[in-house]
Amino acid sequence: MAAVELQPMLAHHDPIAPVIFGVTLILVAALVGRYLARFLKQPSVLGELLIGVLLGNVLYWFGYDLIIILREGVACIKLAQMVMSGVPVETCVASVVGSERVALILDIIRGPQGQEYLSIAQAVDVFSRYGVIFLLFHVGLDTCVGELRQVGRNAIQVALIGVLAPFALGFLMAWWIVPEESHALHMFLGATLGATSIGITARVLQDLNKTSATESHVILGAAVMDDVLGLVMLSIVSGIVVTGSMALDSILHTLLLAIFFIATVLLLGPWLIRILLHLLKNLDVLEAKLFFSFVFVMVLAWFASLAGLATIIGAFAAGLLLMDKHFTAWGDVSQHKYSIKELFAPLEAILVPIFFVLMGIHVKLENFMDKQVLLLATALIVVAMLGKIIAGLGASRKLNRLAIGIGMMPRGEVGLVFASIGKTLGVIDASLFSSVVLMVIVTTLLTPPLLKFSMNRGGTHVSEQQTKKNFDGC
Amino acid sequence: MAAVELQPMLAHHDPIAPVIFGVTLILVAALVGRYLARFLKQPSVLGELLIGVLLGNVLYWFGYDLIIILREGVACIKLAQMVMSGVPVETCVASVVGSERVALILDIIRGPQGQEYLSIAQAVDVFSRYGVIFLLFHVGLDTCVGELRQVGRNAIQVALIGVLAPFALGFLMAWWIVPEESHALHMFLGATLGATSIGITARVLQDLNKTSATESHVILGAAVMDDVLGLVMLSIVSGIVVTGSMALDSILHTLLLAIFFIATVLLLGPWLIRILLHLLKNLDVLEAKLFFSFVFVMVLAWFASLAGLATIIGAFAAGLLLMDKHFTAWGDVSQHKYSIKELFAPLEAILVPIFFVLMGIHVKLENFMDKQVLLLATALIVVAMLGKIIAGLGASRKLNRLAIGIGMMPRGEVGLVFASIGKTLGVIDASLFSSVVLMVIVTTLLTPPLLKFSMNRGGTHVSEQQTKKNFDGC
Repeated sequence: MAAVELQPMLAHHDPIAPVIFGVTLILVAALVGRYLARFLKQPSVLGELLIGVLLGNVLYWFGYDLIIILREGVACIKLAQMVMSGVPVETCVASVVGSERVALILDIIRGPQGQEYLSIAQAVDVFSRYGVIFLLFHVGLDTCVGELRQVGRNAIQVALIGVLAPFALGFLMAWWIVPEESHALHMFLGATLGATSIGITARVLQDLNKTSATESHVILGAAVMDDVLGLVMLSIVSGIVVTGSMALDSILHTLLLAIFFIATVLLLGPWLIRILLHLLKNLDVLEAKLFFSFVFVMVLAWFASLAGLATIIGAFAAGLLLMDKHFTAWGDVSQHKYSIKELFAPLEAILVPIFFVLMGIHVKLENFMDKQVLLLATALIVVAMLGKIIAGLGASRKLNRLAIGIGMMPRGEVGLVFASIGKTLGVIDASLFSSVVLMVIVTTLLTPPLLKFSMNRGGTHVSEQQTKKNFDGC
Repeated sequence: MAAVELQPMLAHHDPIAPVIFGVTLILVAALVGRYLARFLKQPSVLGELLIGVLLGNVLYWFGYDLIIILREGVACIKLAQMVMSGVPVETCVASVVGSERVALILDIIRGPQGQEYLSIAQAVDVFSRYGVIFLLFHVGLDTCVGELRQVGRNAIQVALIGVLAPFALGFLMAWWIVPEESHALHMFLGATLGATSIGITARVLQDLNKTSATESHVILGAAVMDDVLGLVMLSIVSGIVVTGSMALDSILHTLLLAIFFIATVLLLGPWLIRILLHLLKNLDVLEAKLFFSFVFVMVLAWFASLAGLATIIGAFAAGLLLMDKHFTAWGDVSQHKYSIKELFAPLEAILVPIFFVLMGIHVKLENFMDKQVLLLATALIVVAMLGKIIAGLGASRKLNRLAIGIGMMPRGEVGLVFASIGKTLGVIDASLFSSVVLMVIVTTLLTPPLLKFSMNRGGTHVSEQQTKKNFDGC
């Protein structure tokens, strides 16, 4: 009997069809969002995020089952897995989704299309996580260690304050508003505020033709450093969350682990790359570049998570290490048709938007009905802006410190990545996540106009050293 | 309590880590296989298949849980899903995996790492299916309708016989050896034998400098036609399987549906493409090409499966339709940095090998212990070769008909795709699937030497028209 019921399930069309539907839907949404953003002269990431928020909430109110599943994301998958492995439902309620929703979700995943929805949710989740890895790999490719050494005293101070001030402010603010929550949560929120997204500021500076201003140097140098500092901060806080201990020794343990990981990778990496590439000599250059880089990124990401760090730290490290010049065995690099970045561009272009839209879908506007959440979100935004503006004080008096501070404001993709990790670790709940995304959206929206205003008003200083490099990475 | 058990599951590292591990493992295997194949002057697909077979069976004998799950593939996922939705285990046994294994598999998926293994299996499955779609999209890009019109009478006859003869022989052979099975199965096996993989033959002909020989024209023209004929055949047979009816009307229904789908797509497609691209004008060319093509392929694939056809038929149709010259709105195409094919190359390069290795992993050598399976596999191989050699008779007496027939022999990727669809539809079981893969491997292995021999011995005829085009597609 059941076997007969099953028949359509098996004999029905290709099981990939629903997945294709879900993934393509999200990609089309991303495309529309990006299109509108460009039309309104806004960064694409904003368009993709906002279209996600729109899609998620509107379809949710219309009670579209697929979106209900996508909104909960991993939680639903975990729920299904727990039910499968025989965990009683009430414990699932306790440990996975907000209790009120579980009943509804169970109905859906046990319903006729439940399995299709689950496989869509799972596929979208996997794609978006791969997207994040490629994103951080790209950030790594754009960062070069040599450049980090060159950034001046100003940039270093701005970067340090730019990570510590928002962290301290965020921590205190969270503690003040939600004292009942764990310190781990307070710290994680603080850490999320430390990030800086170089991309948005860089574009604004280019639009203003200020790329040669000293202020621009400081901002970009500091932003590059922030990527590294932010990741270290993330590892420490995640470490605290995972071990659940605030004890100094366990914090030091995580810190040392992170440093050890990065150090080993940076020391052994180049040597390892040379040896491995030597073995791949009789693949053609395109294969070698693509496959080797892909496997290298994935292996480092996996080792990072093995060391208890975020996979993105491995991906970032891989980006720091890999350079086209490693592939000279295949002839003059300048003659190669594609650079590593070009080879990963299509993968990135398809997967990263899926991540942004999904983050948008995870934003639950109904959470803002709750006064406390609304208060927290507002406070988060204020602190996020304040913390970075304070960072401007790290620069010398001679410079336009306000402009520098504002330039550090946009959190963009990096802030999102941190938030999503906090969600995965279970330290940040749905409403906090929504608040963080809101913060990312607002800071990203406000930076361009504020930066223009402050730079035109406060003026800037022209420096001698040329900065083209800062924009092109290595 | 269970919530406590769950904690490590949630708080543990990024859930993507195990997926990364599984996928990367398979990719590395593919790399090794390809490397060895090249070393032994064999097509890479062979290396990837064989490394899969090796990996699957060796690790299986060592009782490596992950491989046990990967070998069963979709079956395990379905099993887990059924258990979740409360179907009693014995019915699962009846309808999904070979009974003897179910107990073992249930133990694994309910075990500590079961969930990780399942998500790996699911991700690998999704990736490989996307791989197949990109593969057929590529085949479509290489095929051009104009070219199909040009193929001569010889090629048409060879193509027709090359699909019908193996089908008839395969059908009768299967009926004779496994009369207890359904006719649907007999027909599906027959259909699988109809495919021709142009790639391998084309390379051999180039190695022999025979690309200008009339025989080469006939072979390549016929092979191109076979792609289309094969897909039509596949739709009909799948239709029979899905509807479960051999009645002429339902067969006609599927056939008409397929023809209607292809016709609509070919008629409306170009017009639709022009309109949609007009809307995307203010994306940059790279975005437009990549996103539009990606979405277009996926939408057609989805519609195909909505029409009860295989998703790959949609992907193939998309390939037939999309051309770089559609993107002239972004300036002279020859000036574009990337062609559509180049933009999809990285996606294809990562996903397609995963498909081949996975197909290899699904081959269960232990099945060949069974005399009947061994007999069937041998018969399948003989029929596969015989059927295509007969096809050579479609060519005029003046030509080297044996060489033409042998040139049609390799099944390569297309045969594999058909087999995997049969597996998904549930018409082909594990042992039959293993036999088909073996057939693909053997025909692909034998063609190059036999073709060289027959061409050198029987001689060839030089034709006037140049054939470069045949190799480059449009």
